[in-house]
Formats: sequence, structure tokens, C-alpha cells
Amino acid sequence: MTDPSAGAGTPARPLAVAVIGYSFMGKAHSNAWRNVRAFYPEVPAVQMQVLVGRDGAGVREAADRYGWAEAATDWRQVIARDDVDIVDVCTPGHLHAEVALAALAAGKHVLVEKPLANSVAECEDLVAAATAPGAGRAMLGFNYRRVPALALARDLVREGRIGQVRAVRLSYLQDWLADDRAPMTWRLRKETAGTGVLGDLGSHAVDQVHYLLGETVTSVRGELRTFVPQRPGPSGPEEVTVDDAAWATLQTASGVVASLEVSRVATGRKNSLQVELYGTDGSIRFDLERLNELRVLSGTGGGAETVLVTEPDHPYLAAWWPAGHVLGWDHTFTSQAADFLRAVDRGEPVQPDFAAGLAVQRVLAAVEASHARGGARVDTGN
Amino acid sequence: MTDPSAGAGTPARPLAVAVIGYSFMGKAHSNAWRNVRAFYPEVPAVQMQVLVGRDGAGVREAADRYGWAEAATDWRQVIARDDVDIVDVCTPGHLHAEVALAALAAGKHVLVEKPLANSVAECEDLVAAATAPGAGRAMLGFNYRRVPALALARDLVREGRIGQVRAVRLSYLQDWLADDRAPMTWRLRKETAGTGVLGDLGSHAVDQVHYLLGETVTSVRGELRTFVPQRPGPSGPEEVTVDDAAWATLQTASGVVASLEVSRVATGRKNSLQVELYGTDGSIRFDLERLNELRVLSGTGGGAETVLVTEPDHPYLAAWWPAGHVLGWDHTFTSQAADFLRAVDRGEPVQPDFAAGLAVQRVLAAVEASHARGGARVDTGN
Amino acid sequence: MTDPSAGAGTPARPLAVAVIGYSFMGKAHSNAWRNVRAFYPEVPAVQMQVLVGRDGAGVREAADRYGWAEAATDWRQVIARDDVDIVDVCTPGHLHAEVALAALAAGKHVLVEKPLANSVAECEDLVAAATAPGAGRAMLGFNYRRVPALALARDLVREGRIGQVRAVRLSYLQDWLADDRAPMTWRLRKETAGTGVLGDLGSHAVDQVHYLLGETVTSVRGELRTFVPQRPGPSGPEEVTVDDAAWATLQTASGVVASLEVSRVATGRKNSLQVELYGTDGSIRFDLERLNELRVLSGTGGGAETVLVTEPDHPYLAAWWPAGHVLGWDHTFTSQAADFLRAVDRGEPVQPDFAAGLAVQRVLAAVEASHARGGARVDTGN
Amino acid sequence: MTDPSAGAGTPARPLAVAVIGYSFMGKAHSNAWRNVRAFYPEVPAVQMQVLVGRDGAGVREAADRYGWAEAATDWRQVIARDDVDIVDVCTPGHLHAEVALAALAAGKHVLVEKPLANSVAECEDLVAAATAPGAGRAMLGFNYRRVPALALARDLVREGRIGQVRAVRLSYLQDWLADDRAPMTWRLRKETAGTGVLGDLGSHAVDQVHYLLGETVTSVRGELRTFVPQRPGPSGPEEVTVDDAAWATLQTASGVVASLEVSRVATGRKNSLQVELYGTDGSIRFDLERLNELRVLSGTGGGAETVLVTEPDHPYLAAWWPAGHVLGWDHTFTSQAADFLRAVDRGEPVQPDFAAGLAVQRVLAAVEASHARGGARVDTGN
Repeated sequence: MTDPSAGAGTPARPLAVAVIGYSFMGKAHSNAWRNVRAFYPEVPAVQMQVLVGRDGAGVREAADRYGWAEAATDWRQVIARDDVDIVDVCTPGHLHAEVALAALAAGKHVLVEKPLANSVAECEDLVAAATAPGAGRAMLGFNYRRVPALALARDLVREGRIGQVRAVRLSYLQDWLADDRAPMTWRLRKETAGTGVLGDLGSHAVDQVHYLLGETVTSVRGELRTFVPQRPGPSGPEEVTVDDAAWATLQTASGVVASLEVSRVATGRKNSLQVELYGTDGSIRFDLERLNELRVLSGTGGGAETVLVTEPDHPYLAAWWPAGHVLGWDHTFTSQAADFLRAVDRGEPVQPDFAAGLAVQRVLAAVEASHARGGARVDTGN
Repeated sequence: MTDPSAGAGTPARPLAVAVIGYSFMGKAHSNAWRNVRAFYPEVPAVQMQVLVGRDGAGVREAADRYGWAEAATDWRQVIARDDVDIVDVCTPGHLHAEVALAALAAGKHVLVEKPLANSVAECEDLVAAATAPGAGRAMLGFNYRRVPALALARDLVREGRIGQVRAVRLSYLQDWLADDRAPMTWRLRKETAGTGVLGDLGSHAVDQVHYLLGETVTSVRGELRTFVPQRPGPSGPEEVTVDDAAWATLQTASGVVASLEVSRVATGRKNSLQVELYGTDGSIRFDLERLNELRVLSGTGGGAETVLVTEPDHPYLAAWWPAGHVLGWDHTFTSQAADFLRAVDRGEPVQPDFAAGLAVQRVLAAVEASHARGGARVDTGN
Repeated sequence: MTDPSAGAGTPARPLAVAVIGYSFMGKAHSNAWRNVRAFYPEVPAVQMQVLVGRDGAGVREAADRYGWAEAATDWRQVIARDDVDIVDVCTPGHLHAEVALAALAAGKHVLVEKPLANSVAECEDLVAAATAPGAGRAMLGFNYRRVPALALARDLVREGRIGQVRAVRLSYLQDWLADDRAPMTWRLRKETAGTGVLGDLGSHAVDQVHYLLGETVTSVRGELRTFVPQRPGPSGPEEVTVDDAAWATLQTASGVVASLEVSRVATGRKNSLQVELYGTDGSIRFDLERLNELRVLSGTGGGAETVLVTEPDHPYLAAWWPAGHVLGWDHTFTSQAADFLRAVDRGEPVQPDFAAGLAVQRVLAAVEASHARGGARVDTGN
Repeated sequence: MTDPSAGAGTPARPLAVAVIGYSFMGKAHSNAWRNVRAFYPEVPAVQMQVLVGRDGAGVREAADRYGWAEAATDWRQVIARDDVDIVDVCTPGHLHAEVALAALAAGKHVLVEKPLANSVAECEDLVAAATAPGAGRAMLGFNYRRVPALALARDLVREGRIGQVRAVRLSYLQDWLADDRAPMTWRLRKETAGTGVLGDLGSHAVDQVHYLLGETVTSVRGELRTFVPQRPGPSGPEEVTVDDAAWATLQTASGVVASLEVSRVATGRKNSLQVELYGTDGSIRFDLERLNELRVLSGTGGGAETVLVTEPDHPYLAAWWPAGHVLGWDHTFTSQAADFLRAVDRGEPVQPDFAAGLAVQRVLAAVEASHARGGARVDTGN
């Protein structure tokens, strides 16, 4: 029922999407593609064409469940297809670069789930490919940029509502590794995961610094810690080779200091990304566990306003439900897909781009380097 | 890609759904049908067949947007179709009875958005039809029964975690009519809406009393108020003939007292359904504006536990995301659709059924009657 | 070390105070007299002269502990003393009238702990005595009028910050009787206590309606309940003859509706007085368990400001500590004593006066009458 | 009215107290001495003998106001008096050592407001004096150890309720210097204040680490920042020579990591000391702006209990009011005075002693040293 006459920029047929990967992130991205036009009807129509995974039976079952027309096991073949317009990379991080580079080379528009890649070098290659002449749209999936409350926070900072920001406090705490009997996984090995909580949760937090302040971190001091050095594997204890907690102080070009604490052993914290911004004239606080709320203090006085970010004029909210009908975590992916499709449709830039992913990776690498040097300040290269 | 061999109870073709009505509730229900199998793969496959509305152009645009195969304007024709299995009634309340009775007569499974109907008599007719031999599954859409925190609350009450409940406090406050310049609508006329906030929000609250306690309200005392008696219409001021606030004390057979306050003029409250249960051994509190949280006090002591209701073993949560990834308002409709489909598949009863809607309507009618009699206690007939 | 030259209105010797009663309220009032000039140095100096109680040993021990110069057992003798200027009545409620009338007759300034008395008739006598020519200052101890956050709320209402108030929601919930094994006390017998939770906690709540709105309740509808009809006494079960929960809707002359719920069996609520005011342009919320906070929504928008009421320009705060250093429950009594002393010093009126107590008592009596008449609306006579 | 027969350990006359200093802390300590026996009748009686300050008129006015028998301007003379038993040092920090050493030398019991002194060397001298044979009781005024919720937290940690603590998060944020027009004071000069917010607020935070964990910090990494390097003085801008924000990671002997952030420029934070403890089996959170609450997660599950710390069996609460009647900031000083007097009475040790102050000062000095060395880890010597 797509209407080809809907707009000059709308292609004659729906944009066909392929998602590579079908576990947690594949489920979240599938949900976004399935729902995006119901809430953002102005974006081009999409065809949920093919879901790709290594296990044939598993990916077939998932494709059926999530609403994909086809399932496939060879991502290279899928990328080579002429009838695929968009490649959405939801593999583990160490495969991001290879898949995304191939997709860009094949002329596809590319969306990559965060982190962009596990190393600065890979990120640099990806930025080069994404900015080459004729490349498709290339976007990075830091979905929390589409949390309405955080988007509102950025607007308020930009408008000067809290004056000049001096200090930021960021923490991202989870507890799925608090129990030292939690088993070994690929996420706890350096060769597959790069780092531990630093890359996984720290990347979100660092991207928020860049997003909210509109400037990048130029130097860092940091410290890592592995509280549980061994975990049960299938044939006995195995060594954990990544961090399960990290602390850092980040500094931007303009002199803002951002403190950062991330942990996977913070018992009782399930998915708690907390952001606080302290400016000369006000402050802002956010907690992902109360995703629909933002606390804003502007001007003087003893009080901070708790904004229920569900009003039609709040970012992204016009697309959803009446005021007071709260959104959940997954809605951020749907809004992200809408922004991506709009950019594809119009041939316009989209944020966060791969350069944003490189900027984050440089900060994470600098935190690791600082830790290795006993906590000395390290420049990020941003 | 539906797999007909998935289960003995699964029909050979997907269950075809028709939704009647395409505004706010039509959007919410469409979202549920579109997503239900992605999260609840064990339910039968559904085909989003036809969306029905009075305005041809409007319903076509909505059908395209929400993912329906067809649009239609005549609900009677749609109900008559052999290839429609499920009729989902999202019209204004005064049409519920007519549409749902026709659908049941045609042998369809029926889901009706709350309230069941605007009068006790209509509700009685609907119950009769739904319980006639050979009738399809008939479910009423009190979606808040699928808020995980409220489902958890019910489980805790059942398990005796707060002892014997003595008192309940319920309020459901909104503010979309706080401004006396808000215009006249069909919702503010007695002939189309039946009552005002009492039926609209009070019905949810009363259903929660029945749901959480597992028993019905047998007598009430109540009071209604219209704070803004005139509203601007297209050709001048018009009289508001329904309440915009109501208060009541409800009593159950076992002697529990539930206080109720509902309002559409509670400035600053967007969609605030608050529930408090006080038992001999503990208490429970809930606020819809913090949909993922439940406060539970069990046993003695000075503290109440704030449960982030996102754990895999919490009601409905296993279908969704990892712990700490919060849900929104619309997810309740998807879970509701899953429960309905499962009942259809298995030929089993489903809650809330039409009798639950009748029980609520009797309470609302008794509140009106009490108001008319100066606040005297009125039996509900439940 | 009193300095008699401190002000023209300051008496040549400190004002000598007698407190009648030395249990819970006697302790709280003693604390106020002991501390008032440390925080409010502009008020006249006070001499903590004599603490009065029936048990000689007990009152002597308390007098020593709380800093009184003397202890006594006969309140009539104390009232007759020329060297006593102020009589502060902290006895159980059924003795308030007798003591206060005697003190006024003896020319004393009188402070009476709430409620003013247990009956409307006694309250009327007290008002007559307090307004007779030549009577001393007569104040009623509704101490919550001196909670800074509630005083701020009243200022905001007066200034029109939330527009015209339409509805108020009040609840005052405790749980010290939730356990049905809690023993019988004089508070649970009609002859000594008058009513149960209605008079004890409801009086505070009704006074807040009067205080915050600046007008009185003119009619009510109400309902009482005794959830636990028997309690253990020293020689077996005894009958509880007062309510342990009550509900009412109160209406003021201007048409504001205030809902009220009070309970002593609200498990998990320790001392939770909650106040919500909904106006045409904003709203205000307060919870005594977070005594230093006020939530204010003014104007449109999705957010309510949580004000930490500790700024120097907030009511009463200049007397206390720097911003952010929170106050507790007992500070309200000290501020109350200061307001009383200032009125004594200047010969000026003070609020709440006995008429305020009578107005509250009329409302409580009307709630009882309404209950007796099956919930019919009853005029208060205010 | 002191009763000399109250106990064998009770002296024949009240203990006479002298407070040195009469500004903010002098007011808070006066309040404690004035009230201590009203709430803790078991401690020895005290006589509020003399308040000492440099400005004769000022100290006389304050002495009258706060209830002291005498005022004086020469602290040496006061310390030399035989009729003074207790010397309570509330001067600015750089005078603590001189006064306290003199008082100990004169055989007095000594209470010193935090911080113990501005340098490690001074602290060492004080510890030596306090532990010399025959010295009086010597206590340091970290009053937050007497916040009931924090005392409860320590008990829970000790009892193993959250397992083995891995990580602590501490922040203490204020905003009284957020405005860069706030004037220069002695607190912003290195020669009088030692450090800025690090010593002022950081000392409280570090003491809480020691208190809550029962072990000391052995190494640190830290960073300081002066966001506003100049402030208006009486004759033009002056240089700020201390920090107005600081960040550190502290490590204990057993390997716990505590992150610390303190600031005087955190707009909107008035007096926000936040403490979080993450253990292997649970976690605890506290915020001084909600002084009567503690959030406790013990065992598994998705929820944390918010304890209203006002029950009779909570630390210190039996002395105060019934459950639910919240305490304020100043009550901590009264409880501190009670603990001190009890130790004096019994000749027993009291915590925190001067060694606790030295331990904190070593940590602060190490943070400064780390900052000077570019963030390198520095041992504290504890």
C-alpha cells in the first residue's frame, strides 16, 4: 500500500533493509524497522527484507517472529544483493568494521550498532570509507541520543538555559556480574570484547558528553579494575581479561570536566545511566531508570523542576502518544531508525556519524592508556 | 513465513484481524497486533487484515501507516467476511455494544476497548451474547491489567504478602480539561459519552479494585462535579453535561473500603493513576507515571521496597528486554493481545471478560445514582 | 543575661511560662520554649518556670530533663500564680477547655495544643473567653502551619501562582494501629478522645484546608470506619468506640472541593500528611515525610519543581541554618512559639486563634453527623 | 535540679562547658549543649558556662541568645579556669590545633569541630597529646556519624547485609560558589583554609568511608580544579588559591575502591552528601538532602527498600520522637554531644577520636600530592 507519490524524494519502491545479527540488538533493531512508519509516516517506506545470522535454524525462527521476509546465513551474499538498500550491523563489536566496510563498498546505506568498532584504527578506516565520495548514509547507533529527555537536555544546554557548563557527572551502573558465579562469556575476553564495561557502557556515557556539550573530550585520566578475576567456564575457572569497573575524569577543549564511573558489579543497579550537568546558571539531571523524566534547575532558587518528558513539543514525542503516556527503552531505536531514514531520503548528514564513533573510541583508548601509565593524563587526539 | 506445524492448536492460516476505529485507540491496538508475535512467538500468527473507519481517505492513510493489508469504511461488511477471525472494537463507547454484538453474532472472537459500554443494560446484553453457547472469545481491553507492576501487585496480594487488605486508595488524575478554554468535544456530552471522567478514568480504577482484590464492589457512595460548566463550541459556548471530577468510597463484599478520586482538571497530572493497598501485614503503592516501579512494604519495619519491575521473573517481562530496560505505556496493549490470542488458540477463558466490564459499569452507575441521591449508599448489584 | 533594653516592647523581666502536661506534647513544647530565643532573638525572653503533671515523681524528672525551674502537680495553683505569664496547655484534649478557660480567666496568655477541644460547644466557650475584652493572647497549636514548605505553599496560593484553586486532596496516614494486637488506650474510647483518627489527624488536615485556602469549609459528606473493633485491655478484650479511618469530601463557600482520607491502619505510613492543591494555573504537592520539600507546578508545561525549602527567603528559614541544612518535625514548635511570643510582645493578633480551632471542630462534627445520616451533606455552620 | 545520686559516675556538679567560636558552628554546638539532656537524660548534666569569641559585643549578644551564662574574649583565660570541664573548639580550622593542645594540656575534655586541623603535622601533634597518659576525652566533630541513617548503614555493613563491599561512590556537592560574583573569603585562601572544598566537604566524605567500612584509605589518586580563579574583594579582584572542585579514587587496604567528587559550584545542590555502597550481596544509598531515608538492597531481586529511619530501634531514634517524626540536620550535633558526655562520664573511648581526624587528613594530603604529581597514585601512610 506504499504510495509512490508521497514525495519527490521517496523512492519508487520501499527501501529494503537487511539486519546482520539477530540476538539482543537484532531484536531491538527489528522492532524499530517494524514500527518506524507507524509513528513516523513521513519517512520512506521500508521493506523488512532479510535477517542474517550464522545459525540457519535460529535465524529462520527469528525472521519469522520479527517479521522479516527472508532469513540468510551469509552476510556477504546479502550485501551483494541489488535489492538491499540498507545494511544494519548488529553483530558483536569485533565484526563491525569488516561488515560495515563491505556494505559501504557495495554502495549501501549503513547503520552500525555501537560501539563503532573495538579499536581506533578500525574506526579510522570506517570514517574514511563513510566520507569517501559517493558513499551512502552511515550512522552509528548510540540509541540514547533518541531518549526524549536527553534530547531535551541537549536543547536546553544549547539554548543556554543552564549557562556555561563547568562539570558533568556520569555513571552507568549495572549488576549482572555482581555475582562472582556468573559464567565466563566472550564479553569478558579481551580478544573478542576489546575492553569490558569501559567499552560497553562507557561508550554510551562518553557519547553523551559529546552529544550534550557539542564538543569532544581532549584528554583523560583513568583507572580500571577487575573485581572478579576468574569466572566459571565450561571446563573450569577461566581468567577474566577485561575490566568490570572503571573510573575516569575527562576534559574537553573548553575546560569542562566530566567524571565517569561505570560498573557491571554495582549490585542493585540494573541499567542506571545517570547524567548530571552543572552550569554557571543551572543544572540538569537524568536517570535512565526513570527514562521519561528530566530534572532541570534553571536560574536561581532552591528547586529543580522534574519534567515528565511526554509533552507533544518535547523531542520525538509528537510521533507517539498523548501527554503522560510514557515511553520505554525500545522506542529510542524506532526514533533512531526514523532519523536515519529521513537522512537517506534527503541525502542529508545524520548524527551520530562514524566520526562520532571514532571520537568516542579515542577517549576509551586514552582511558586504557592512562590506566597503563599509572593514571597520568593522556591526550585523546580529538 | 508462518509455520503451520508450530503447534497442534495453531490454525492452518494466520488469524485475520479487523480493527474498527483508527484514532488514538486504533493506533494503540494496531501497534499491539503488529508486534505481538515478535515478543510472544508462542501465540498464533496474525494477519493484520483490515482497518475500518468512517472517513475513507483517513482510514486508508492510517491503514498504510500502521501496516494493515486493507482499509474499509463499512464495519458491517467487514464483520460479515469469512476471512476475518477477530474483531477488535476501538470505536467511541456508545457504539461498542452494537459492533460487538454483531461480531459475536457473526461468530468472531471479539476484543472490546474499555469501557465495555455506556450503560448497564448494554453491558448485560453483551455478557449474554459472550456467554452464549458457541460464542467466540470475548475480552475487554482494560490494558492496565497488563502493566507488569500491577500484575505483580496482584500476585503479591494473592500470595498474602500484605496480609488481608483493609483499605485501597485510588486516584486517576489528568489535566487536559484544566484550561477552561479547552473546546467542547463529544466526550463532554452525556448522550455520546455517558459520563465524563467517571466512566473514562474511573472505569480503569474500579477494574483495578476488582483485579487486585479478586472481589467486586457491592456498594458505593459518590459525588460528581463539573468545575467548568461551559466550553467553547464552533458556534459559541456549549453546556458540558458530564462530570470533570468525581469522588467515591467503594465497599466490597468482604468489607474492604476503596476511596476513589478522578479528575480531568488536576493541573500538572498528565496520566497519573495511583493505587495504594493497605493490608494487615503490608502495603503496596503504584503510580502509572512511574510505570516500571512498585513500592512494596511487607512485614514490619520502617521501609518500603521500590521494585524496578523489569526482572525476567516479573509478569510479562520474559517476553521483552533484559532487566533494567524499561517498558512504556503501549507495551501493555501488546501483552494484552498476546493473552487474548493464547485464549483464542486454546479455547480457554480470558480475563477481563465482558462480565468484568459489567461489574465495573454497575459500580459507575451506582456512583451516579448515589450522587443523585445526595450521597446515600447505593448497592451495585454485584 | 536578658537585656531589658533590647526593645521598647520587651518586658522588664522574662515572660514566665508554665506547661501543663509533660508527655509527648509536653516534651515537644518544652523543646520549643528552650530554643526559641536562640533562633528568634527578637522575641521577648522567656523563663521556663514550671512544668505541671499529675505524677509528682514523673513531672520532677521531666522538669529536670527538659530544663524547667520547677515541677508542680496542681495546675490550678500554677495558673493562680502572679509570676506566670503564659500557660501552655498540653493535656489530653478533653481537658483543654477547662484549663484554658481558667488560664484566660486568670489573665494569662494561652497556647493550646490541638485540637482546641473535643466538642463544638467547648470550642465556642473558648472562643468567647479568648475574645472577651482584656483577654490575653490565645493561640492554637496547629504546628504544621509552621512547616516552612506549607507556609510557602500558602504564600504561593495567595499570590495566585496556581490560579484559582478548584480541588484539594488531603490524606494523613499512620499505621500505629495496623496491628490488631496493639492495646487499648484512652485514645480509642469515645468518652476521652471524642473521635479517633478523625479528630487526631483529621483536625490537622482540615486546618490546612482553612490555612492554605484562606476560607472555611461550609459543608461536608463523610464516612467513618472502625477496622479493628476490639483491642486487648488489661483484663481482656475491650470495645473500640472511635473510628480508625475516615473519608470525607469537604466544600468551601467558594466551591472548592477537598477530599480527605485519614487512617491509623495504613501499614507502612508512619506520619504521612499529604496535601495536594489543584488550581486553574498550577498545582502544589507536599508530603510531611519529606518535610523540607515542596513540589510546585505553575503555569503550563510538563514539569513540577521540587523546591528544597531551606533558602533564607523561605518562610521561617532565616532563623535557622544555611541553605540545604534541613529541618525536622520539632522545629515547627519552636517557630510557633516565636510567633506566639511576638504577638504577646506586640499585643497583636496571632494565628491560628481559637476561632480557627472552632472552625475545624465544626467540620469534624459535621463529618460525624454526615456519617450518622448515611453520608448526607451536612452544613458545618462556618 | 541535677540529681547527684543519679549514678556513681555522675559528677557532683554539672560539667561546665566552654565553646570557643560563636558563628555557624558555635551556634550549632550551642544548640547541642542546650538540648542534650532533654533527649539523653542518662548523660551527666552540663552547665553552659561560657561562650568565647574575639568580638566582645558580638559574643555577648550570642551568649545571651544561645543560653550561655557568660561571654568571654580570651580563650586562654577560659581554658585556664578550674570551673571549666569541657572545651569545645569551633574556631576556623587553622586555630584548631593551638586551642585544642592548650585545652588538653590544661586537663580538659576536648571536642573539636572538623576538620581536626589543616595539616598532617598538626594532626599528629594532636593525636600525641590526646593519647598522652592522663589526657581527657578527645573527640572530633564529624557530626554526620550521628545521622541515624548513616549509623544504620554502618550497622548493616558490619552485619554483612550487603556482603563484602567492593566499591563506594561518594559525592558532596554544594553551590554557594557557583556564582562567580560571590565574594572572596578566608575560606578561599590557602594560608587560612589549607584547601578548598577538598578539606571542607571532602573531609566529611573521607571520614564516612572510614566509618562505614571500618578500615582506612591507604592510597589515592586525585585531581583538583579551581573553576573561578578570581573573586571580588573589598579593593578589587583577588586570586582564589584553593580548589572549588575535586575528584579522587581512594583505595583501602582490603581493596575497596571509593570514588569521590566534591564541589562548591554544583548549581542546584545545596548540601548534597551522597553515599553509595556496593557489596557482593547488596547495596546501600544515602542522600543528606533526604536525611531521614536510607535505600537498602539486600539479597537478590529488583528492588531497594527505602527505609524511613525514624523507628525506635534505629540508631539514636529512641531519644527523639515517635516513628515518622523526622529529624533535621542539627539533631546530629545533639546526639554527638550525648556520645561525648557518656564517654566523659564513663572514662571510655569515643569515636571519632583524633586519630580518625589524622587518618582523614592524610588522605586529603595525599589527594593534593597526587594532583601535584599529575594524578599518580600516592600512599596515604594510613
